[in-house]
Amino acid sequence: MNVMRHLQGLSLDFNSLNKAYRANTLTPIDVVREVYGRIHDRGTDFVWTCLVPESQALAAAQALARHDPAQMPLYGLPFAVKDNIHVLGLKTTAGCPAYGHYPAKTATVVQKLLDAGAILIGKNSMDQFATGLVGIRSAGYPVNSFDSEYIPGGSSSGSAVAVATGLVSFSLGSDTGGSGRIPAALNNIVGLKPTPGIISTAGMVYANRSFDCVPIFALTCRDAKQVFDVAVGADSDDPFMRENPNYSARSEIPASGFIIGIPDKANRTFFGDQRAEKSFHHAIHLIKDLGGEIVEIDFCAFATIGSMLFDGPILAERLVSCGEFIENHRHDVHPVVGAIVNKAKSYSAVDLVKEYHRFRQLMSTAYAELRKVDALIVPTAGTIYKIKTVEADPIKLNANMGYYSYFANLLQLAALAVPAALRDDGLPFGICFLAGPQQDLALVALGERFQTAARLPLGATRIRYAEH
Amino acid sequence: MNVMRHLQGLSLDFNSLNKAYRANTLTPIDVVREVYGRIHDRGTDFVWTCLVPESQALAAAQALARHDPAQMPLYGLPFAVKDNIHVLGLKTTAGCPAYGHYPAKTATVVQKLLDAGAILIGKNSMDQFATGLVGIRSAGYPVNSFDSEYIPGGSSSGSAVAVATGLVSFSLGSDTGGSGRIPAALNNIVGLKPTPGIISTAGMVYANRSFDCVPIFALTCRDAKQVFDVAVGADSDDPFMRENPNYSARSEIPASGFIIGIPDKANRTFFGDQRAEKSFHHAIHLIKDLGGEIVEIDFCAFATIGSMLFDGPILAERLVSCGEFIENHRHDVHPVVGAIVNKAKSYSAVDLVKEYHRFRQLMSTAYAELRKVDALIVPTAGTIYKIKTVEADPIKLNANMGYYSYFANLLQLAALAVPAALRDDGLPFGICFLAGPQQDLALVALGERFQTAARLPLGATRIRYAEH
Repeated sequence: MNVMRHLQGLSLDFNSLNKAYRANTLTPIDVVREVYGRIHDRGTDFVWTCLVPESQALAAAQALARHDPAQMPLYGLPFAVKDNIHVLGLKTTAGCPAYGHYPAKTATVVQKLLDAGAILIGKNSMDQFATGLVGIRSAGYPVNSFDSEYIPGGSSSGSAVAVATGLVSFSLGSDTGGSGRIPAALNNIVGLKPTPGIISTAGMVYANRSFDCVPIFALTCRDAKQVFDVAVGADSDDPFMRENPNYSARSEIPASGFIIGIPDKANRTFFGDQRAEKSFHHAIHLIKDLGGEIVEIDFCAFATIGSMLFDGPILAERLVSCGEFIENHRHDVHPVVGAIVNKAKSYSAVDLVKEYHRFRQLMSTAYAELRKVDALIVPTAGTIYKIKTVEADPIKLNANMGYYSYFANLLQLAALAVPAALRDDGLPFGICFLAGPQQDLALVALGERFQTAARLPLGATRIRYAEH
Repeated sequence: MNVMRHLQGLSLDFNSLNKAYRANTLTPIDVVREVYGRIHDRGTDFVWTCLVPESQALAAAQALARHDPAQMPLYGLPFAVKDNIHVLGLKTTAGCPAYGHYPAKTATVVQKLLDAGAILIGKNSMDQFATGLVGIRSAGYPVNSFDSEYIPGGSSSGSAVAVATGLVSFSLGSDTGGSGRIPAALNNIVGLKPTPGIISTAGMVYANRSFDCVPIFALTCRDAKQVFDVAVGADSDDPFMRENPNYSARSEIPASGFIIGIPDKANRTFFGDQRAEKSFHHAIHLIKDLGGEIVEIDFCAFATIGSMLFDGPILAERLVSCGEFIENHRHDVHPVVGAIVNKAKSYSAVDLVKEYHRFRQLMSTAYAELRKVDALIVPTAGTIYKIKTVEADPIKLNANMGYYSYFANLLQLAALAVPAALRDDGLPFGICFLAGPQQDLALVALGERFQTAARLPLGATRIRYAEH
């Protein structure tokens, strides 16, 4: 492997690899070797629950030689998937080794990526049963890619760190309450969380199956879009898809004179983190420079809906997903995860119906606010915590991380987490663009303009984002 | 009033009244007088729970003189509403006098009709708490307008009979599991059951609030469409509206070469009623004459979904609507209604989530069948029963009535019940057109062609349907 170490400075963003492939200065085999070299160099980093054997990944890279790169939109791009997404031949653990089992079938979305030429490297660690936004709710967990004292964010911790540290070009996570956005923000990468029901979730361990979705982590918005274009679309194996999953709202956000909502002052909080607050204001200035008008919207309904996710009868869906396993494997399950999920046992069907009616009332209010703007921006996470701080107060601080993310899937929104600033303590800060159902591509176009203007390094690498 | 009895033969369909108004041969005051005359002549028919005082209806008719008829799409048309829809100044009983209370506000949809020039005559009897399809689940109930030994159909019994017997030009009902279609079929009138969430349900006593809707009863499809055009549209007071309630699918069903699905033979039943079966085949022939191709679709998922409405955790929503009242007023509530609703108490939130997941799986199958056709037709009701027969077996025979109707709102379908035949025993038979969300107007266009071809009398009157 040492022969390849001249690739050490190579960025795995799509443009860099595609250019090298086109120029024949690199082959997918070279890239796969470099990826495994990097993984090997990092040692035990708890980013992975399992790796595809290198020989197998190399064989996949080799097999690409028989194909026309122009016909494969993800040709030779190494990727990883969170370990609650099924891949034939690899154990699915959902972050809990005792739960581990070999699935019968590869998830639809993973198969689509493989068919498009992407090369699977392995599966990533995560908060057990995707229940957490901190990334430390499992036996072994990765640390933040900027500072090892800090949480990586979760629940898709490993998937985000793998992209941020240049181990793969992109990855798939899962997102119920923010798992595809929080770790993106905490590791300075992009997290594209699609509208629920437009990317198949067939072949996963579910949290809230009716609004779980599969987000895409990448270094740039453009890269995320390229994966999105392959991943999106109907799947008869997923009964929770929207009526027209391929439909994307034609209403682009105009190049200037667009209106961006932010949470009103009374409901905007950074949990005492002034660096985060300063970074959010920096992001707002960038938006204004791009021609956006900023208006405050009433965030109360969004926050209230968010609080329903882990406090009330909606938890029952999580109990349906993993309650039986937790019941029978108390000692194998992280105590915080077990405690949260078991709360759902006490609710009746009537409780759930009443909660749904309350939700619809709040949803109506939230949508009225959304209609006033082209998109909403929020801090992806209002702050970032040290690992030991979260360990001392695991439930409340986790809930703080979800304040700006919990509501999105319940409301069927599209969301895009984009790096916004590096704080003066060296930690990253991100913002999240949000809009109504199936406005995903409008958000990506806006996010790309924002990312170009922000001129930040890519992930935790030293490579600065440039317009390719 | 006797001076007006020369109007006895007057049909109250919109075209007849509009022509007379335009020609100045009649005024709305004449029509209101005639309506009250007819109501008076019928005596105690249990069609009404309360009437607007005649003087008040006459004043409304008088007030129309100040308006331009061309600006009022429902100018001078007398109508009635089911007694679970709120009208300021009139008691709402939902078919249960002990529940009676004066509401704080008129329902949004009723206000729209009044603003469009329609004249409210009164409120109609119904199966208690809209829980029934037979029309006899209340203390006093109307009989079938064709044969007094037979059930009128429900739960919107009075609203359908009022239109069929020429007491009003149209009426509003409610429809959760078929209440806007079954009584239409059993009284030879049209029942337009909109896609849930496109006509406001703000201001009602709910059954399953998340998919209740307000259907329109009229003598012709064209009349129903005219009311629909006024009634449809967003309402900030109704949190259960669809995203774009005014949107109507542009895909018209082609004038010929269209494909109509019918339930497959294994799942098609008339409960031993050969006259109904013969009438359904007659309707199929009419569809073919209109240029339609008939294909069988797998009806199993539709029937299974239908059975969830009154047998399983979905009942909990009905318990939320009226459970507390039933609990506290056992002796005022029809025993069958009380027994049905109370079944819901035993279900947990987990039960309801599991049922929802099962529903989504079946929904996916049902939609795959719907994609094969332009529209579906089913017998609106598979048979019709005598009152005494239902009294002997009230739950099972009621469920038989819902076999072709229960599934529609759970699946967010548009539906249109249209008279199809008069059987050789003199009883009416109807078919119901069904299609995906917001295909309402496409169904109305097809229904109108069907009704024109069927050439039946209007309702229980002797007036034959003619192309106006």
